[in-house]
Amino acid sequence: MKEIGIGLLGFGTIGAGVVQGLADNKTVIAERLGATPVIRAIADLDIETDRGVVVDPAILTKDAFAVVIDSQIDIVIELIGGTTIAKDLVIKALEAGKHVVTANKSLLAKYGKEIFDTAAKNNVDIYYGASVGGGIPIIKVMREALAGNNIENIYAILNGTCNYILTQMEEQNMPFDVALAEAQEAGYAEADPTLDIDGHDTAHKAVILASLAYGFNCPLDAVSVEGVRSISPEDITLAKNLGYRIKLLAVIKGHGDEVEVRVHPSLVSHDHVLASINGAFNGVAVVGDLVDRSLYYGKGAGREPTASTVIGDIVDISRNILAGSECRVPAITYSAADVTVKAMDDIETRYYIRMMVADKAGVMADIARAFGDRSISIAAALQQGDCKDGYVSVVYMSHEAKESDVKGALAEIASMDFLKGEPVILRIEG
Amino acid sequence: MKEIGIGLLGFGTIGAGVVQGLADNKTVIAERLGATPVIRAIADLDIETDRGVVVDPAILTKDAFAVVIDSQIDIVIELIGGTTIAKDLVIKALEAGKHVVTANKSLLAKYGKEIFDTAAKNNVDIYYGASVGGGIPIIKVMREALAGNNIENIYAILNGTCNYILTQMEEQNMPFDVALAEAQEAGYAEADPTLDIDGHDTAHKAVILASLAYGFNCPLDAVSVEGVRSISPEDITLAKNLGYRIKLLAVIKGHGDEVEVRVHPSLVSHDHVLASINGAFNGVAVVGDLVDRSLYYGKGAGREPTASTVIGDIVDISRNILAGSECRVPAITYSAADVTVKAMDDIETRYYIRMMVADKAGVMADIARAFGDRSISIAAALQQGDCKDGYVSVVYMSHEAKESDVKGALAEIASMDFLKGEPVILRIEG
Repeated sequence: MKEIGIGLLGFGTIGAGVVQGLADNKTVIAERLGATPVIRAIADLDIETDRGVVVDPAILTKDAFAVVIDSQIDIVIELIGGTTIAKDLVIKALEAGKHVVTANKSLLAKYGKEIFDTAAKNNVDIYYGASVGGGIPIIKVMREALAGNNIENIYAILNGTCNYILTQMEEQNMPFDVALAEAQEAGYAEADPTLDIDGHDTAHKAVILASLAYGFNCPLDAVSVEGVRSISPEDITLAKNLGYRIKLLAVIKGHGDEVEVRVHPSLVSHDHVLASINGAFNGVAVVGDLVDRSLYYGKGAGREPTASTVIGDIVDISRNILAGSECRVPAITYSAADVTVKAMDDIETRYYIRMMVADKAGVMADIARAFGDRSISIAAALQQGDCKDGYVSVVYMSHEAKESDVKGALAEIASMDFLKGEPVILRIEG
Repeated sequence: MKEIGIGLLGFGTIGAGVVQGLADNKTVIAERLGATPVIRAIADLDIETDRGVVVDPAILTKDAFAVVIDSQIDIVIELIGGTTIAKDLVIKALEAGKHVVTANKSLLAKYGKEIFDTAAKNNVDIYYGASVGGGIPIIKVMREALAGNNIENIYAILNGTCNYILTQMEEQNMPFDVALAEAQEAGYAEADPTLDIDGHDTAHKAVILASLAYGFNCPLDAVSVEGVRSISPEDITLAKNLGYRIKLLAVIKGHGDEVEVRVHPSLVSHDHVLASINGAFNGVAVVGDLVDRSLYYGKGAGREPTASTVIGDIVDISRNILAGSECRVPAITYSAADVTVKAMDDIETRYYIRMMVADKAGVMADIARAFGDRSISIAAALQQGDCKDGYVSVVYMSHEAKESDVKGALAEIASMDFLKGEPVILRIEG
């Protein structure tokens, strides 16, 4: 049976998962593919530690740059991560005529266009299914299954760490810090969780999805990003009582040549499918003009689920190699239209605003005027709990309003002297 | 720009949706594909009725057999349905070297092997994404994205009519007949709803999924099929109070060379993702050894969602035509293993059994003995409601038990003279 030569860069958790998956499922993969992917080189700085998988020591090397030009290798799997050495290796592999599979979302979010252009120029494939959604084949679905659709919007839970923490906060009634520490202990959060909990990991994935859905090079720095650090148990409970669950969402929404791309904690109605995606799971809800509402759900990270998608990409590229159909599906198709990211100030959505205000006459009227002057219509206002030290907690739920108007109203409210601390502003989506 | 010639067989709801979708989304499809699919012929017995879509009358014909050999046509779209003329046309198209897209589940469930073999022999593609799950790209996911996985099981809601009726019965507290009439009025059920509500439509789709997942020619007549006609509001309410929702499920589950393939109403725990799939939506939950739990959700029928998948298949085949990679992904890969469908009597699952029994001493002990003699362990037994005419309704929830043992116990119970009517037997899944 024909063999497809694989070179693996990065022998960490996912790399070991790919080695194990290819070995364990060798028979079924060979039957479906009509060829056998064979790992011919594994590069890592650490070639000593036992990863618990069987590997011929002769294929281990510290020299990743030798792997990407190795004539025995057809497909290079980049699982190093980051945007420095990984970028050099991916570019060199593509230039050497190797096909590439990568799970590296930050690399693609920052250098996607350069990498995709390099692949196209060298007539080789780059597949990146595992860069978004772990085991969820959302990249394949966007590139292929939904090719006939104009995408109306995508609402996605793309970070298992944040979702796990938010779920724990709701179910166990935990404050954020405790839930984070617990997530770190359970292995769901990194020692340095910044990239996850501040929303940057989700933003990287949002950039990739937005670029694919709307055929443009979505600039990472145009994406508005807020993380989950400021979410309090109080807001989670309030949201719950109002019929919502708080989720860190990537929101991608087309308006002609303008696209909203934003990442922030959001109130999601209990009726929405995304509300029932709990713990470390991810979900991507896509609305297309033909397909209508659809959802793709699975484990967003982890050794085996990510390996599932990496191996799916290996099979896809191998099928191209066998059929002589390299670049059969372009990594991305750039639209002729001049698509840009809509400024955050211009977006319109519904808002949840909670603030501590002095419990005295006229305050509610002043707030109502600040909103009313900007035509922000309030769907519900409620006072929450008792008066403490002369202040009460009030929550406003708005109808659809413009972000800049809401900010303007809150600036005006802040300039009056009855506000204590910062207001909590969450957007209501779905 | 290069054109791909399309011949459409069947100009009904879905056919008109495909014509409309290709026209409305022409720009985005051409950009992504680098070619334009052009409908060059539409065959239907009725070429008079206005379908509300713009069509050059010159391409309308009553002669479907001329379309499948038309040299201007690259891809034949079969949307006629049924297993007679549709079969002849599909076979003739494949033999004429045309690629085929079909949404015809009954055709593939009955003649899948013959059709797939004919396609392979003639080196042409047959794509059948819309045969299962409407807008859900589950066929693509199984053939491609999950190619690296051994599939452990598939639990799927595949019939929107049944799901709509069951949802209405629960939410509106309606009896089956009223919910069915309401579904017919709302356009969610056919005038003759037999194929849907008796489970046969779901069985056709289960056969296709099981064949793909386990690489064998799953025989339709080996599939145990029960529909939803016998579901009563009483069972729906009881299930609800016990933490379950009743869904018509296709259950596909591998055990080495034996595969369970069965269709029946099932109690699904509220915690399971499938429980939240309501109304006319479909959902397919797949567990793979690598991907772990995953779910694909969307509209299981309807003009636009089905057109989304048909157009996705057109794009896929067009990409093969452009890349010269016909048959790049086999329609199905038959495994070397001798896979068979497990006899229904041999399956093991949990059971919900409700029966009307005489309210007198010794009855419960006799029932307990009938179960106990066959090592059927009861997780919960509850008496429901008051005694009526000397009979009470009792519900048993079993632990995992063998189907034949449960049937044996119920036969023994039926032979005693305290039972009124037939027991209701539902399986508890997920």
